[in-house]
Amino acid sequence: MSTPLWIFDTTLRDGTQGEGISLTAEDKVKIALKLDAMGVHYIEGGNPGSNSKDIEFFRRVRELNLNAKLTAFGSTRRKNSVCEHDVNLKHLIESGARAATLVGKSWDFHVHTALQTTLEENLAMINESLAYVKNSGMEALFDAEHFFDGFKANPEYALAALSKAKEAGAAWIVLCDTNGGTLPGEIGEIVSRVVREIDAPIGIHTHNDCELAVANTLAAVAAGARQIQGTINGYGERCGNANLCSIIPTLQLKMGYGCVSDEQLKSLTGVARYVSEIANVHMPVNQPYVGNAAFAHKGGIHVSAIMKDSKTYEHIEPHLVGNKQRVLVSELAGQSNILSKAQEMGLDVNPENMKSREVIDRIKELEHQGYQFEGADASLELLLRDAYGGTAQAFIVDSFKIMVERTGGAMVTEAIVKLSVAGEQVYTVAEGNGPVNALDNALRKALVQYYPGIRDIHLSDYKVRVLDEKDTTAAKVRVLIESTNFKDTWSTVGVSSNVIEASWEALIDSIRYALLGMDKDEYVPEFVGGTHGLSNH
Amino acid sequence: MSTPLWIFDTTLRDGTQGEGISLTAEDKVKIALKLDAMGVHYIEGGNPGSNSKDIEFFRRVRELNLNAKLTAFGSTRRKNSVCEHDVNLKHLIESGARAATLVGKSWDFHVHTALQTTLEENLAMINESLAYVKNSGMEALFDAEHFFDGFKANPEYALAALSKAKEAGAAWIVLCDTNGGTLPGEIGEIVSRVVREIDAPIGIHTHNDCELAVANTLAAVAAGARQIQGTINGYGERCGNANLCSIIPTLQLKMGYGCVSDEQLKSLTGVARYVSEIANVHMPVNQPYVGNAAFAHKGGIHVSAIMKDSKTYEHIEPHLVGNKQRVLVSELAGQSNILSKAQEMGLDVNPENMKSREVIDRIKELEHQGYQFEGADASLELLLRDAYGGTAQAFIVDSFKIMVERTGGAMVTEAIVKLSVAGEQVYTVAEGNGPVNALDNALRKALVQYYPGIRDIHLSDYKVRVLDEKDTTAAKVRVLIESTNFKDTWSTVGVSSNVIEASWEALIDSIRYALLGMDKDEYVPEFVGGTHGLSNH
Repeated sequence: MSTPLWIFDTTLRDGTQGEGISLTAEDKVKIALKLDAMGVHYIEGGNPGSNSKDIEFFRRVRELNLNAKLTAFGSTRRKNSVCEHDVNLKHLIESGARAATLVGKSWDFHVHTALQTTLEENLAMINESLAYVKNSGMEALFDAEHFFDGFKANPEYALAALSKAKEAGAAWIVLCDTNGGTLPGEIGEIVSRVVREIDAPIGIHTHNDCELAVANTLAAVAAGARQIQGTINGYGERCGNANLCSIIPTLQLKMGYGCVSDEQLKSLTGVARYVSEIANVHMPVNQPYVGNAAFAHKGGIHVSAIMKDSKTYEHIEPHLVGNKQRVLVSELAGQSNILSKAQEMGLDVNPENMKSREVIDRIKELEHQGYQFEGADASLELLLRDAYGGTAQAFIVDSFKIMVERTGGAMVTEAIVKLSVAGEQVYTVAEGNGPVNALDNALRKALVQYYPGIRDIHLSDYKVRVLDEKDTTAAKVRVLIESTNFKDTWSTVGVSSNVIEASWEALIDSIRYALLGMDKDEYVPEFVGGTHGLSNH
Repeated sequence: MSTPLWIFDTTLRDGTQGEGISLTAEDKVKIALKLDAMGVHYIEGGNPGSNSKDIEFFRRVRELNLNAKLTAFGSTRRKNSVCEHDVNLKHLIESGARAATLVGKSWDFHVHTALQTTLEENLAMINESLAYVKNSGMEALFDAEHFFDGFKANPEYALAALSKAKEAGAAWIVLCDTNGGTLPGEIGEIVSRVVREIDAPIGIHTHNDCELAVANTLAAVAAGARQIQGTINGYGERCGNANLCSIIPTLQLKMGYGCVSDEQLKSLTGVARYVSEIANVHMPVNQPYVGNAAFAHKGGIHVSAIMKDSKTYEHIEPHLVGNKQRVLVSELAGQSNILSKAQEMGLDVNPENMKSREVIDRIKELEHQGYQFEGADASLELLLRDAYGGTAQAFIVDSFKIMVERTGGAMVTEAIVKLSVAGEQVYTVAEGNGPVNALDNALRKALVQYYPGIRDIHLSDYKVRVLDEKDTTAAKVRVLIESTNFKDTWSTVGVSSNVIEASWEALIDSIRYALLGMDKDEYVPEFVGGTHGLSNH
């Protein structure tokens, strides 16, 4: 039997303190449902005393019957006051949450400097506030803010703060490394001491200011902490909170603790990506366990080894966390990368045959020209499918024209596109925010009548990189386009000395790839009779 | 006296194994110069045996007289062969680098599965290859690949591999957690054991697959490792390498080790951002120590506390690593910075006067719209000069028009510009590689007759970034343009929902800034009489 741990997710509260993270009540409800399905034990929903958005969230989430304990966050009562008159505590109790986390001071410096009160009054604030919340029928948790800094400065006082919380009946005492400056060795030592001296369930809450939040959490668990506070993708104030997406799999797969079920662990990558979508924050490609490159192999030697046995360069099996292996094709890679990629796509490849040699030569030639396929999986897939004869041309572009004009401060951008689709000529014009956007709009306008599904696709990122800086007059540019249909994301590449041409190439690849997905089996256009009006398919 | 450590940077080698990281030889030279100035002890430049780009880099960098030891990377010799016939080792020796790192196997599983040779042959490969490189006059380092996995599987064999390297005269024996799956406790224990048994200087090389690369490096140092291998911003294969930007300050500011000088440590944030710019990889805002939000405070309670004493919510003083505090509620990064910038330019600023308040409000407003002046000093300087009345408009653009057309595979891009210069109307047309290039050409053609010096200026880089916006149809783009006159380099910025408009803004700023330099004292156009012919000034 593995030792059970309690996962306390604070994405919806501490996570939103991160720069650029802002969640509506609706966003929070969506995320809470995902977290609940993944099996976290506590979901800290926000601070109902601080804003109406959080009050709305708590109202809506009550109807959802979550398995997780919904938790509201607030501070201990104001100094020189009583709990009964504290508006913040009142909101907390009225939130309808099953549990409340109260944050209080455990560092004497903070009591003097930030609170500007006496050490005794702070202890009374902790004790009375927790007892008050508990008496209201809620489970009461104590977040001992700056506990580690406090312990280093004045261990007796820091421990006294914890004792006061325990006396008040706190269900959990959570040790916070609020400033994120403590090292794993110190965390381990101090948590051991607390576990010996305070007879209450202990939790850990760390921040990532030294890139050590995960290590600090693991050190605390090894020393006896049993509740883990953190956020999805490590969102949070400054450098973020402890990243549950790294902590849960390490505890469960490598250290023998039980956090969630094996099935729930497989949802981790999906949850991480979902939350990053909702928060509209780009997920770093190299994020551990759940990132798109977490099991991506680029070096040629690495690739030829993983084809023999993936254990050679993978610390766990990616499917355990719902992620998958990828092979990146780049100039650093050998042909083994390309062949494994083609196999992954179900193409019949044989390293010996002429076709495979031709494809590899073609990719090498393109890379030499400045193409880079490691960030453009979809372009590579099209190239391989074309080479092995798997795709037809869904449409042919006869010509296009773009006009950008600025007179008197107003900017107009238009694109005209002439296409052949399903034996017909289509001629469309559209405006846009720029030449590429106008082209994209004109293309969609032409194609939507044949492929209505194209409406769900949009460009999510657009990057331009100038190649060969030395020879500036003939400088080439590489354009990378990322597209999404809210479910999948794919990337395409174009290279040219003309930025419009490079963008155009990437754009056409993006749309061709999307069409591939829409009608993969037969690849017959969803042609809707002779009319060019919008179809209802 | 603090214990000295040796910093081994492998951004240019292992860093480029990261997805989306691709550096030209020119990029690598630029980064090497920055790393050298920051005081790293080894700079691993690449694998001269693998591609011509790395060979070119090694050729160019030899002329730079770096303080750091330039290091070339390669593998131990091929199995069942001799060093004298090994092309890879030949390239290594011919690279002109002062040191060579040879990677070899120390995990028996890998010897069988990946190398497909005998355990004995692998030991011979290690021993002979290192001795061969050392005999050529280079310092020889041994990277023991998968050492920790190897030690756990077969400690005797893993240690035997190290002994063979030591026998051959390796200057450093570097223990690699290649798959990034080892935990800090295991790292500490195993390194202690190695330090006891192998009498040679020990290095550590970790990967971030469990988000533990930094913690693992620190654990190894605490156990006796003295060389640290890592990359700037943690770039590298899969989840990346150990991030030197987090490791160096923690070792130096918190653990009492000596890595670089205090002054060099202050360049850390600048180097991190420079490398991310060159690599064209977005730096996560919450990156520890060097990220833009690393010392950014959003929570209201936090902000009021840091106003009393910044130690309340900051684990170190940000200036120690060249970063700065930001308060997100007021949006603006250090108005004192802006005022000191204006003073630096010789402008008469007084924080009390109305003008200064207006400028700060204007910059705040622009930052809110997505402008970023950190990478666009020239735009900031123009903005400040304009505000304090220091500049006249050298020219006024009445209108412009761009046409891009593609028919039958040929691409034509033209721009027409109508300007007022020195009281005259100028109307020019030019072709280009793309709309921005055509605009640039038409502008120059119009201005060269008045400012002949403009001939020496060209765009050296052009970057487009889509800003994170929830509303994707109205997504804004930020364009950064870098220009050079072969002596100086300056950067300008433009933001708009239209990429051409954003480019146009940055372009106009670039030219205005150049003209400022040309005629700084009086700012009178070098007007050459009534003719529009080329002048010889």
